[in-house]
Amino acid sequence: MDIIRENLGENSYQILVDRGLLNGAGDFAHKYLPASRQAFILSNKTIGPIYAETLASSLKKAGFTTWIYEIEDGEDYKNLATLSEVYDAMVEARLERGGSLWALGGGVVGDLGGFAAATYLRGIRLVQVPTTLLAQVDSSVGGKVAVNHPQGKNLLGAFYQPSLVLADLDTLKTLPDREWRVGFAEIIKYGVLAGGEIWQLLREKSAQIAAYEPELIRRLVVESVKIKAQVVAEDEREGGLRMILNLGHTIGHGLEAATDYRVFRHGEAVAIGLIGAARLARNEGKFPPELTGELEEIVAQLGLPGEVPSQGRRPGLVQEVLAHLAHDKKVEAGQVRFVLPVEKIGKVELSQVDAGILSEVVAELCGEGAV
Amino acid sequence: MDIIRENLGENSYQILVDRGLLNGAGDFAHKYLPASRQAFILSNKTIGPIYAETLASSLKKAGFTTWIYEIEDGEDYKNLATLSEVYDAMVEARLERGGSLWALGGGVVGDLGGFAAATYLRGIRLVQVPTTLLAQVDSSVGGKVAVNHPQGKNLLGAFYQPSLVLADLDTLKTLPDREWRVGFAEIIKYGVLAGGEIWQLLREKSAQIAAYEPELIRRLVVESVKIKAQVVAEDEREGGLRMILNLGHTIGHGLEAATDYRVFRHGEAVAIGLIGAARLARNEGKFPPELTGELEEIVAQLGLPGEVPSQGRRPGLVQEVLAHLAHDKKVEAGQVRFVLPVEKIGKVELSQVDAGILSEVVAELCGEGAV
Repeated sequence: MDIIRENLGENSYQILVDRGLLNGAGDFAHKYLPASRQAFILSNKTIGPIYAETLASSLKKAGFTTWIYEIEDGEDYKNLATLSEVYDAMVEARLERGGSLWALGGGVVGDLGGFAAATYLRGIRLVQVPTTLLAQVDSSVGGKVAVNHPQGKNLLGAFYQPSLVLADLDTLKTLPDREWRVGFAEIIKYGVLAGGEIWQLLREKSAQIAAYEPELIRRLVVESVKIKAQVVAEDEREGGLRMILNLGHTIGHGLEAATDYRVFRHGEAVAIGLIGAARLARNEGKFPPELTGELEEIVAQLGLPGEVPSQGRRPGLVQEVLAHLAHDKKVEAGQVRFVLPVEKIGKVELSQVDAGILSEVVAELCGEGAV
Repeated sequence: MDIIRENLGENSYQILVDRGLLNGAGDFAHKYLPASRQAFILSNKTIGPIYAETLASSLKKAGFTTWIYEIEDGEDYKNLATLSEVYDAMVEARLERGGSLWALGGGVVGDLGGFAAATYLRGIRLVQVPTTLLAQVDSSVGGKVAVNHPQGKNLLGAFYQPSLVLADLDTLKTLPDREWRVGFAEIIKYGVLAGGEIWQLLREKSAQIAAYEPELIRRLVVESVKIKAQVVAEDEREGGLRMILNLGHTIGHGLEAATDYRVFRHGEAVAIGLIGAARLARNEGKFPPELTGELEEIVAQLGLPGEVPSQGRRPGLVQEVLAHLAHDKKVEAGQVRFVLPVEKIGKVELSQVDAGILSEVVAELCGEGAV
């Protein structure tokens, strides 16, 4: 088992990565949540039926009273209406301050469940049990919890750290291909941010990674979590450094919003956004064209889109993406700032971008070719 | 001007108490929120029309872009539906991360506005501008923000500290008599908790206090805020000591919930709850009968109820209050704990209470006399 520590003073916690962790949940709960005796398991209607009973059973053996509540599956349900239903179920269960919420699922369950845990009785303990590659390498670590607003993704939320993260690699076995690939997008992001082992694996073993070779996946998950945990430890509340984790996400969010969250999975939009960030930097003269090409190749080899696919293209899309960028959370004094790779793999900066270059790159990504 | 500092490390802030503070808001904003340039003023339809323009005007002169949004007045609107409307208005205003929310009003505006500020874009700056005595001495300080759930008061919320509190004594002038009195309830609570100057004023000058003598009110506000700030500084997230601030609130919340929040103002229920706590302690042999009597007298002299008034009485009320107590946030392992005065004014403890004594005291408070 790999144990990665997220160092945040009194908010510190452990991230466990291994196979078969669900069966040991009761033991981990005793060790890491010593005083809790109520476990409210939040999942969705796809994941819940497969794994929730295994988790509940382990917790019951450890003396917990458990509840299982399943929300609808999908980003469409990551909203205030679902949150309100979850609150009702928690109240109905008479969950007490010493209780815990176990978020068993992907990013939607983790983000919404995390928000519920952060705000029910002004905060109860939260255990993240991510069951997708994307959630294991990204959303389950770092304490960003949120729901979407019709006008934007994650506009409503909080910083609320879990007490424990259980990343059970066995739960990845049931992932559809498309869900694997969207997880790769965040791993590529860590590769661009940090270089090192991840970038080397992505360059040299992309075929085996695309075939989900278990030992490679384990190494990628562990190395990705280490990078995420380190960045978060230095900047829990995104005052500065943590913003680098938004690499690829600014354009990515714009694409998701402009297509009403119906064309892309999050990771697909991020993959396009990563290429977008590299091209912005390249066109600003800050990032070598050959590394931009290398990134484009890795994205393609892992089965991710490098631009908006033909069925997502339509007149006006470019302008809508640009309009959504102007609403981005990172807007300061009306100016959008982008995380851009600079000079080499493993180095980024936060900067504004020339409006002409931005329009041109977004147009390319939207399939409008040269403007 | 009195300036009281709430010491919470990097979450520290100042509480300013004086007349005429609304007119100086722009200057205070420059001093205490140096980088903010957007001010979203949240108020209600009673208070907003009287004071919001004064506040907005001062902020505009200081270079702020301002918005005023008014919610309906009253505890009935402190819920997720109103919160959702406020989120919509904040999104519509395109409020950025550097923006600030100014909660201008009583406890409902402060609690709901605080929750909105805590969760919009994962947290923007919050300025509390309490315009009721109750909010000035209690809810504006300490960072407890929340909305109600149909099953209980403040079940959904967070700990989120403001960046500044402006307690403008001039805004109290427009308070109806009933609103003054409910503020006195929390002041009496501080008197029981801390003794000292507050208790002395309450005992010796209750007639002048009941006539709102300005200099006495100022002293009571300043001394109350000092006590609250000190307790919060020692226990920001209610891990222990801060629970003493719930003196009178356990039974008080039970009474409010059992009467569907329609019979009592919060402070009236707290006044009854304070007497309830004293009688529980007295009947447990922990608190002198003569001090219980002294408290009852002060409550009466300040125009607050000491028991459920006749129009609020009905069969089954006692059982409903007891049932609501069993749902209290302070329940641990199924047992309700009460803050009780012990031995003398200025000393309290947290403890469980004999079920028979509890039923008896609640029955008395509900007007059922000796059971």
